[in-house]
Amino acid sequence: MEIKLKSPLDMHLHLREGEMLKTVAPLTSQHFSGAIIMPNLVPPVDNLDRLLAYREEILAATKGDAFEPFMTLFFRAYTRAELEAAMPHITAIKLYPAGITTNSEGGVKELADAEATMSLMEELGIPLLVHGETNGFVMDREREFLTVYEQIATKFPKLKIVMEHITTAHAVALLDKFENLHATVTAHHLIITLDDVAGGMLNPHLFCKPIAKRPEDRDALLNAALTAHPKLSLGTDSAPHPQHKKECCGCAAGVFTAPITLPLMADLFAKHDALDKLQAFVSDNAHRIYGVTPPEKIMTLRDEPMTIPEKYGDVVPMWAGQQLGWSVV
Amino acid sequence: MEIKLKSPLDMHLHLREGEMLKTVAPLTSQHFSGAIIMPNLVPPVDNLDRLLAYREEILAATKGDAFEPFMTLFFRAYTRAELEAAMPHITAIKLYPAGITTNSEGGVKELADAEATMSLMEELGIPLLVHGETNGFVMDREREFLTVYEQIATKFPKLKIVMEHITTAHAVALLDKFENLHATVTAHHLIITLDDVAGGMLNPHLFCKPIAKRPEDRDALLNAALTAHPKLSLGTDSAPHPQHKKECCGCAAGVFTAPITLPLMADLFAKHDALDKLQAFVSDNAHRIYGVTPPEKIMTLRDEPMTIPEKYGDVVPMWAGQQLGWSVV
Repeated sequence: MEIKLKSPLDMHLHLREGEMLKTVAPLTSQHFSGAIIMPNLVPPVDNLDRLLAYREEILAATKGDAFEPFMTLFFRAYTRAELEAAMPHITAIKLYPAGITTNSEGGVKELADAEATMSLMEELGIPLLVHGETNGFVMDREREFLTVYEQIATKFPKLKIVMEHITTAHAVALLDKFENLHATVTAHHLIITLDDVAGGMLNPHLFCKPIAKRPEDRDALLNAALTAHPKLSLGTDSAPHPQHKKECCGCAAGVFTAPITLPLMADLFAKHDALDKLQAFVSDNAHRIYGVTPPEKIMTLRDEPMTIPEKYGDVVPMWAGQQLGWSVV
Repeated sequence: MEIKLKSPLDMHLHLREGEMLKTVAPLTSQHFSGAIIMPNLVPPVDNLDRLLAYREEILAATKGDAFEPFMTLFFRAYTRAELEAAMPHITAIKLYPAGITTNSEGGVKELADAEATMSLMEELGIPLLVHGETNGFVMDREREFLTVYEQIATKFPKLKIVMEHITTAHAVALLDKFENLHATVTAHHLIITLDDVAGGMLNPHLFCKPIAKRPEDRDALLNAALTAHPKLSLGTDSAPHPQHKKECCGCAAGVFTAPITLPLMADLFAKHDALDKLQAFVSDNAHRIYGVTPPEKIMTLRDEPMTIPEKYGDVVPMWAGQQLGWSVV
């Protein structure tokens, strides 16, 4: 069997900088026609000069591929002038609660301090992407944060809000309660639960934030993806760390999926007899939600097995060495 | 401040064999006057010859210390003759559901198959120790198994049953519902939750089975320990693995606490103003529950800081390199 995907998009991607970026950026640009680029570098991408320079670095590393990096600013209190100057160059602004995940130390401490900028974003039509976790108990962090989404969605009814990398059935349910709420979901959260991380041996390569949750959560996410819920887009949150930072005492959070996402999704959707929904999930929904116009690119996938490489550069991907039923032609 | 503990006991201990045993056994015999020795070796300790030879190996490694290894057999279908021959040499029999933890592949598959032996144990007065987990979702395994405890406790009302290394508030509550149910709890489950394993960085040295649970579970365990619940004993489940099997991709389950347990407990009980309950928790309860008579040994602890060593042999202990407020004099 063969399917053709038109202009697949990854609406949540980490590319890092320097050598790591050179390793991983082409792995995305070969398969996707665009991706939302996360701004949590050190220091964060929170001004236009840095953003434009970062965009150039990405374009240089992906030269030759039809690929558009959709840039984002790291949320802080921005002035109207700053936002207006940035608008032609950005797709969204990403909000991190302070200290919640990798390189988020400079994030938002008090929601009240963020409201003036949110109000400007609402007026100017700039989408707000949110890493929605509290600093509570690890299994409860997303669920506890949902009230914050409700507050923002109510207070700024015209602000387009995206709940990033949702992991719970509760978040899926919230999508239908507020018109201005949308979500991304990763490839791995459609597949794994906490059992895969810590149920047998401890598996650092499946350790990520938000942590994979319960079977009923995974099932709710999967159902939303397989039915191409119109407010949900694929956003891999593919996050490369050097091998020594994963296989060590105190390993960093992040699953690297960029180069295997499309075969992984084809495999998953085929198994559930939902291949007809894949185009919407990996592209059409995102086009509509974010209003982006990436370069056209047709990716062909076939149900021929691929073996996932042990490493890409120094980065170990999800399920390294294992087989997938589908591959990119 | 100074306290004296009389004949501390560790009612759940892994000593392994060979070189590892030589490294870790003295670390227990220096502090404890006795310990229940787990039988999940490869192959398991499931006959008297092997058990007596294993006991000799432990005595040789702990020579010079007043220390009694309380031996256990690995549960299988035993005949009356086998049990009667073993009785003078064993304190209990340990049941593992098949495949649930390290070296448990030969464990019990169907509870019904175990009932004839349980009936003999009830008649002969041999305590049954149980690793009580199902093969369900990692956070639910102990809670799901509680119905099995209820079945056994009801069917064999005179069989002394010990729920090993309990980790949930539900298990604590069950203690009070059946006269013949008892429990051990580890040092680390009184202190950590899943947050410590996977809430920040992934910490393989705090990864164990059963996995550490939610804050309300930890609080229920701690409360039971601090009040020296009469049916609860300390059982460290201290489980040494070589460093390379912990700090790797796919790390083994087990926390190594043997050499730091007494200072850790003194520190914990002092912080909660419950030092007067420590003697019962680390010794008196176990004497009464198991009917054992270990050699007398007085351990003195003082509120002088100790730094936990980075390693004991090739084994990294819990909280390596960190400080405790109390130490063994």
